[in-house]
Amino acid sequence: MSKTEWRIGVAGLGTVGGGLLNFLSDHPDFAPAGGRAIVTGVSARSRSRPRPFDISNLPWFDDPVALALSPDNNVFVELIGGSDGPAKAAVEAALNAGKPVVTANKALIAEHGAELAALAEAKGVPLLFEAAVMGGTPAVKVMREALVGDEIKSVAGILNGTCNYILSEMDSGGRAFADVLAEAQRLGYAETDPTMDVGGFDAAHKISILAALAFGCAPNYAAAEIEGIDQVALLDIKLAKDLGYRIKLIASADRSDGGVLVRVHPTLVAQNHPLAQAGGALNALFIEGTRIGRIYLQGPGAGSSPTAAAVAADIADVMTGAVRPVFQAPAATLKAFTPIDPAKSMSRAYLRFLVKDEPGVIAAVSETLAEAGVSIESFLQKPVENADGVPIVLTTHAVAESVLVAAIDRIANLPSVLDRPRLLRIARI
Amino acid sequence: MSKTEWRIGVAGLGTVGGGLLNFLSDHPDFAPAGGRAIVTGVSARSRSRPRPFDISNLPWFDDPVALALSPDNNVFVELIGGSDGPAKAAVEAALNAGKPVVTANKALIAEHGAELAALAEAKGVPLLFEAAVMGGTPAVKVMREALVGDEIKSVAGILNGTCNYILSEMDSGGRAFADVLAEAQRLGYAETDPTMDVGGFDAAHKISILAALAFGCAPNYAAAEIEGIDQVALLDIKLAKDLGYRIKLIASADRSDGGVLVRVHPTLVAQNHPLAQAGGALNALFIEGTRIGRIYLQGPGAGSSPTAAAVAADIADVMTGAVRPVFQAPAATLKAFTPIDPAKSMSRAYLRFLVKDEPGVIAAVSETLAEAGVSIESFLQKPVENADGVPIVLTTHAVAESVLVAAIDRIANLPSVLDRPRLLRIARI
Repeated sequence: MSKTEWRIGVAGLGTVGGGLLNFLSDHPDFAPAGGRAIVTGVSARSRSRPRPFDISNLPWFDDPVALALSPDNNVFVELIGGSDGPAKAAVEAALNAGKPVVTANKALIAEHGAELAALAEAKGVPLLFEAAVMGGTPAVKVMREALVGDEIKSVAGILNGTCNYILSEMDSGGRAFADVLAEAQRLGYAETDPTMDVGGFDAAHKISILAALAFGCAPNYAAAEIEGIDQVALLDIKLAKDLGYRIKLIASADRSDGGVLVRVHPTLVAQNHPLAQAGGALNALFIEGTRIGRIYLQGPGAGSSPTAAAVAADIADVMTGAVRPVFQAPAATLKAFTPIDPAKSMSRAYLRFLVKDEPGVIAAVSETLAEAGVSIESFLQKPVENADGVPIVLTTHAVAESVLVAAIDRIANLPSVLDRPRLLRIARI
Repeated sequence: MSKTEWRIGVAGLGTVGGGLLNFLSDHPDFAPAGGRAIVTGVSARSRSRPRPFDISNLPWFDDPVALALSPDNNVFVELIGGSDGPAKAAVEAALNAGKPVVTANKALIAEHGAELAALAEAKGVPLLFEAAVMGGTPAVKVMREALVGDEIKSVAGILNGTCNYILSEMDSGGRAFADVLAEAQRLGYAETDPTMDVGGFDAAHKISILAALAFGCAPNYAAAEIEGIDQVALLDIKLAKDLGYRIKLIASADRSDGGVLVRVHPTLVAQNHPLAQAGGALNALFIEGTRIGRIYLQGPGAGSSPTAAAVAADIADVMTGAVRPVFQAPAATLKAFTPIDPAKSMSRAYLRFLVKDEPGVIAAVSETLAEAGVSIESFLQKPVENADGVPIVLTTHAVAESVLVAAIDRIANLPSVLDRPRLLRIARI
């Protein structure tokens, strides 16, 4: 088989697979390095399912592993999804057969990236996953290739378009989470089971991959601290706005001497910050390096065409014949991922709780926080109609999470405080 | 010479060269693909000039061409600058000798990119220039490699940090151009001869390179329409602010069926647009593609460390052994660059001029514009102290530039109009 003809097996024929088939069918000679890329086999769960694109002329494989092993293709594209099961089996089979692999599967790379990287590197073939993070926006290439002359200190951004859409709609339309989610599901912006997205797990997969690329460590999804947006109250969005913030689901990875902290949680971001202004389904990322300073990248995080274009760019990279380490360093030399105890992490915080409408309450709260070692930055008391009590909102100066949680325990026990304070962190970015 | 040892000849020892020497001296094994990169020869105009880094142990070459040809190195890094002269001679010599070349030289690539690409490709070696555009922010890699699965329609952004700094200071401090420029020169942010920057020529070099990468055509600097910031009046910055805009030096390249339009000019950008918010010396770029939609990239456009990191990333790319076409396609298949007549380009516009303070003036201006086929969007008349007349500002709906210029000629001839209207375009982005 001539190297100028790249024969692509595509497993998974959802929206991204369809976009890729359409693109390669129209542009087999798209790669700048030359050569043709043609699809020579497909696999999906159902052959007969109606699709908005034609697969009748393409060789069909019931089993993606059989497609991965077929001598009729020399590049395997995995668009099945899921961290284990057929996706992992097929990717392993292709790599073992010495085939370059391109995947959009964030769960697979975040959970099994190090072992797959070792396998790919042992076989001397590329394993590429641009489409796994930020869809059509080239965060992976930027991290893996463009910033190798720097030491990255932190990455932080908006990595889940569904959550960003929901939070943006709650903010602009004054509607509650459940209401916006139901609409997003009707419109096809959110899955029937939205847990992966709204629970923060999808963003955690993506930031785990970026952390590995940034810090030269193995991806460690299990170490990620994850909080989703399903508990974000409209009241907090409104109160945050009064204080000059928007609430965004921020995924971040920070490196310090002690190790790495990877986390996903709803976060207050100052309204004039670029991340606060990345609305709708946009994805956005800040990368901070020792030498380069701060780079900001923003674009579509999903969608058939953008994500298929990212897969195509990976195929073009395969077609150059270049083989790089899968992460920031060869798999054998990836550093151990030492998680930092989040209790030690410092950040400014937003606390919101209900108090009885009686004298001395603010004094009691302030004294309790002062005794616990938490310094108040701002205080907002705002009458809200039909409330059982008076909502109090305060923001703190930077404080260790363990100190803050202990302080919250004390406040919750004050007789004039009616509920456990809601804690949201304020972005340092 | 083992391929695992990459011996780098560095010509040009200014701020970027110094940053690169420091980096490679501390991190010879930085490249993920493995191998060591060590500097084995340097060249600059003066050997004895005081420098904040040590070159006493490095082999010295008076002539950069001799360095480019020396068998002691197998990669040539050109940081001399200038479109012709020693930089061009040395790059040609290195390519002819079959050596990979890395350069930060935007003028060289913008003015001679096609012939150098043909030479590099004929010799089968890479010619890389990440640092030539946006310094440490990887615009070139994103355009050249990450977006090959798309068709780019336009790129537009802020590509000159000096101009952005000056305009930002004028805006925030209410100071005139000459005043801010003099301060920038004292602080070292602007050159003693600032023409390349403030005249828009540096940004034009960069957008010419991006246009070639975006549209698969040869770079054509000669076809760029260029207007700098030296004629931007503080009054226009203030009036634009009243209308909800900031004035930025925008470099843009647009493709249409008829050809390509590359231009650089001061432009009104809506205050809530990311490009308006990229202040100080930041660089920023929007890339719009048919499939991917809009990608935004922002970061440092200059500086020793960021730019040296971009050069280092190119060296790491060389070390992978991959050879790609220099632009979006092999030099032999680059499309002809067909310039579009800017007179036909459509945009909204801002016009500012002085009128006599007498009845009927606004009616006369409005009628003249209507007769010329220009539709007014907004009108602002603002008393200014000590003015010889009354300044009038108006913005138009989108109109062909030829129509607009004809209308300006007519307005300038009205007896009640005291000067020729100042024209600034309003961003479509």
